[in-house]
Amino acid sequence: MFPSSGGQVGPTLADVGEFGLIDMIIADLPDRPDVLIGPGDDGAVIAVDGPVVCSVDLLVEDVHFKTAWSPAESVGRKAVAVNVADIEAMGATATGLVIGFAAPPATQQTWVLDFARGLRAECHTTGVALLGGDITRADKIAISVTVMGSLGGHAPVTRSGARPGDVVALRGRLGWAAAGLAVLGRGFRSPRAAVQAYQVPEVPYGAGRIAASAGATSMIDISDGLLADLGHLADRSRVSIDVRRDAFDVPEPLQAVAAATGSDPLKLILTGGEDHALAATFAASDVPEDWTVVGSVTEPVDEPAVTIDGQPWDDDSGWDHYR
Amino acid sequence: MFPSSGGQVGPTLADVGEFGLIDMIIADLPDRPDVLIGPGDDGAVIAVDGPVVCSVDLLVEDVHFKTAWSPAESVGRKAVAVNVADIEAMGATATGLVIGFAAPPATQQTWVLDFARGLRAECHTTGVALLGGDITRADKIAISVTVMGSLGGHAPVTRSGARPGDVVALRGRLGWAAAGLAVLGRGFRSPRAAVQAYQVPEVPYGAGRIAASAGATSMIDISDGLLADLGHLADRSRVSIDVRRDAFDVPEPLQAVAAATGSDPLKLILTGGEDHALAATFAASDVPEDWTVVGSVTEPVDEPAVTIDGQPWDDDSGWDHYR
Repeated sequence: MFPSSGGQVGPTLADVGEFGLIDMIIADLPDRPDVLIGPGDDGAVIAVDGPVVCSVDLLVEDVHFKTAWSPAESVGRKAVAVNVADIEAMGATATGLVIGFAAPPATQQTWVLDFARGLRAECHTTGVALLGGDITRADKIAISVTVMGSLGGHAPVTRSGARPGDVVALRGRLGWAAAGLAVLGRGFRSPRAAVQAYQVPEVPYGAGRIAASAGATSMIDISDGLLADLGHLADRSRVSIDVRRDAFDVPEPLQAVAAATGSDPLKLILTGGEDHALAATFAASDVPEDWTVVGSVTEPVDEPAVTIDGQPWDDDSGWDHYR
Repeated sequence: MFPSSGGQVGPTLADVGEFGLIDMIIADLPDRPDVLIGPGDDGAVIAVDGPVVCSVDLLVEDVHFKTAWSPAESVGRKAVAVNVADIEAMGATATGLVIGFAAPPATQQTWVLDFARGLRAECHTTGVALLGGDITRADKIAISVTVMGSLGGHAPVTRSGARPGDVVALRGRLGWAAAGLAVLGRGFRSPRAAVQAYQVPEVPYGAGRIAASAGATSMIDISDGLLADLGHLADRSRVSIDVRRDAFDVPEPLQAVAAATGSDPLKLILTGGEDHALAATFAASDVPEDWTVVGSVTEPVDEPAVTIDGQPWDDDSGWDHYR
C-alpha cells in the first residue's frame, strides 16, 4: 500500500525488473477482433471506423492520488475512468488505450499487481482494449493514459456549439469525489460511498454517445468542478450559462459531509472536481432520458459568464494544477 | 536550465498557471486538413486512413534526461523523436501526437517555452500534428508522448516475422548517443556530434515505411542497444541472428570517445542505447537502398540467440529500467 517505502517484505519492482513488470500488467488480455497487434511490439495496431478521438491524462502520486487514501486497484480503475470520460465528452466510444507507468524501484510488486488488476477491470467494464505501454522508474508513481475512441459516424461534440436558448443538462454525479476527499483529508473513512467516489469516479459510460445521437450542441467532462467546466464551455461557445440552484438534490452522504465539515453542500456540488459527470447543451426538446436539466444558455451580456439563479458565484470554483 | 531550482529570476509555472502553460505549448499550431479538432477540447479528433498504429513513451527527468546535460529544446525534440521511431518501426508514418507534461511549480517559464519550441520543431520535421495534452505538477519533470500513425495500406511490420535465410539490415546510427552520454558523465562537452546525438537522436524518418514497402519481414527500433533489441526480435520470431563484426565502421567521434574512456568502440555500437536506428530483416534481394546489411537470420540451435561472428557477446547488453 505504501510503494515508496522500502520497509515491507515481498518482492519489489527492482526484483522483478522492467520486463517482468510489463508481463504483469499485460497478462491474459482478452482477444479482440479490432486489436490487430497488441502489446509487445514497437507499437500497437487497432482497426478504427472513421476519425479517431484521442485524449491523454496524467495521474501523479501525491497530486492526483495518495497511496494511503486509494488502494492500488482503485488507482488503476481511476486511471482508465478519467480518460474514458474525456472520450465520452466528445460523443465518442472509447476503443483502446496505451499506458505509461513510472514508479520507484522500491515499489512493492503487490501494489503493481493490484493496480494492473484495477486497470484491466475498468478496461473490461468500458469495453476498451489495453493496447500496450511503456514502463520506467521515477521517484514517485506517475501514470499516463492515452485513450482512443470512435465516433460511430456522428460528428464530434465540442465545447463550442452551445447556442442561446439551449438547456444545460447533466448525467452523472457531482460533489461526491470532493466529499470523499474532504473526509479523507480529515483522517476519516466514511461516508464510505463518498470515499469510494473519490477513489474511483462513477463515469456515466455510454452517455456521451447517447447525447451525441440526441443532438447535443456542446458537451464537457466535469473534472474541475461544474462551474469551472461550464465556464470553459461558455467561453468556447461565446455564451452565458445560468444554473438553477433548485435543480440539485443534495444526496444524504453529501449532507453528512457538509454537516461534519461545516461547509455548504451546494458548494461541493457546484465546485467539487473529479466526479467526471457529463454536462451538455441541447435544444429543450432533445434532452435524452436520464439527463437532468440544470440550467439554460443565454446571450452573453458582455463577456461569457456562468451564474447561479442569475447571480455570480463568489467563491473559488476550480482547479489550477500550478496554483 | 535548472527547472527544479527556485533561485533564478523570471516567471515560473506557479506564476503562469496551468492554463497559461497550455497556451504556451500549443500556440500557433499549423492548420492541417486531417486534424478535425485540435487542442482545447476534451479530446482531439484526427482523420485516419485505415488502422491506427500507436505507441507511448515516458521521459523522466534524471532517468532519461538531465536538465544540466540537455537544453530544454533538445528534450522537447527528443520526446517526439523517440516516439516517432516506434511508429517507424511498425512500417508506419506518424500522423499525430498527444503529450502529458508534469513539472514542478518552480520550473522556469523559459524552460517550458524552449521545451515547447523543440517539441513543435520536431513535430514539424516529422510531419506529425500536435493534437493536445494534459498538464500537471510533479516533483520532477515527466513527459509522456503518445504518437499515432498510419500504415498507408501496408500490413504492419512486427518483431515476429524474421525467417531463417533473411538478412539483417540497419538504417541509422549506433553508439553515438552512448558515446555522448559517456563524455557528459565525465564532465566533458565534446565530441560535440556525440553529445548532440545523445541530446536528440537522429531518427531515420521515413525509413520504416520504405522498409515495409520493400518487404521487410520484421523490424525493431534500436532503443536498448543493437544486441538487446535484436534479442527481442529473435525471441519473438523464434530465430537466431548472427551479426558480422566487420559490417561496422567506427566513426571518428566514437573512436575518440572510446580512446578517451578506455573502452571498446565496438561495445558502444553493439550495446549503446538511445540512437533509435531501425533494424529490419529482409529477403537478401529486398534490402532497400541506404540500408546496411550487418548479419543474417538462422534456425535457432536450441533457444533463439544473437551472436557476433558466431560467438556470444559476453557483456551486459541492454537496459532494464528497474535494475
